[in-house]
Amino acid sequence: MATSTILPLSQLSFFTPKPYKISRAAPFRPWKQRTSQPTGFKCHKMYVPGFGEASPEAKAANNLHNFFTYIAVKIVTAQLQSYNPEAYEELMEFLSKHSLNDGDKFCSDLMRESPRHKSLALRILEVRSAYCKNDFEWDNLERLASKMVGESNTRLMRDYVLETTHAESERGQ
Amino acid sequence: MATSTILPLSQLSFFTPKPYKISRAAPFRPWKQRTSQPTGFKCHKMYVPGFGEASPEAKAANNLHNFFTYIAVKIVTAQLQSYNPEAYEELMEFLSKHSLNDGDKFCSDLMRESPRHKSLALRILEVRSAYCKNDFEWDNLERLASKMVGESNTRLMRDYVLETTHAESERGQ
Repeated sequence: MATSTILPLSQLSFFTPKPYKISRAAPFRPWKQRTSQPTGFKCHKMYVPGFGEASPEAKAANNLHNFFTYIAVKIVTAQLQSYNPEAYEELMEFLSKHSLNDGDKFCSDLMRESPRHKSLALRILEVRSAYCKNDFEWDNLERLASKMVGESNTRLMRDYVLETTHAESERGQ
Repeated sequence: MATSTILPLSQLSFFTPKPYKISRAAPFRPWKQRTSQPTGFKCHKMYVPGFGEASPEAKAANNLHNFFTYIAVKIVTAQLQSYNPEAYEELMEFLSKHSLNDGDKFCSDLMRESPRHKSLALRILEVRSAYCKNDFEWDNLERLASKMVGESNTRLMRDYVLETTHAESERGQ
């Protein structure tokens, strides 16, 4: 039977845990009106304040980037577990001491740990690139996220309506 | 001049900060071989352990779901700031006390705070749905994430090579 020890990765989340801020100084623009641009290009997108020169898409891409590193580490550890237990132990040891929150920093540190760790790092880089470009189902992501928003909205409203209906019928009795 | 106070949202990150775990018990399957399925469908995707019945895409979609709630809150606060300062203050007050980590919980709590908060919550639900379905640039997300992985890999390797080259040339002198 395989060992079932679970090693927690130190505070791994795909996002750095620094608190996000909503600034009160954001100028009021109810809808993202790019009509004000000299090109006259009409855009009816909503204005999202606070992203400066970056975009929500860039922020989400950066988060996915760290997620892909996390996935690549999972793939590589699963591969090593059987045919290279020594390297597997080394990687798990490294994982227990280094956070995967910042994927690039993790890989950079891994490369500098030892020549053996370096080859593991190169493999993780290769796997995350292949995973992002070939394996990750982008269409599926869009479909699932859209579905999730729709279903969550329905559920939240239904729960609220049910709750108030109960309260009202209790009052009516 | 607009006030420039910045209110931190309590520990907002798009992911809950619970540590992720890499299990040692994951069975070894170097490549995700769906050939073992009775359908005989060939799949050359890499095996990603540890997602159980969920998929990496579902996990990423869930994270984006919370991100969209965060974006919707930003959009709505920016809208309120000018034409409804009272509601703006109420929402900022609520934001200072409630975490946006779990978008659905945030909306659920907001709905139950007061009738005025409820209408704000309904608006946030509407905006996050519209944002996800119409405004968010999914193609751009894929393009940016792929570019990021490629560029980061190149940068990490180049930095390492430069570092070792310096070390070697210093030794050579």
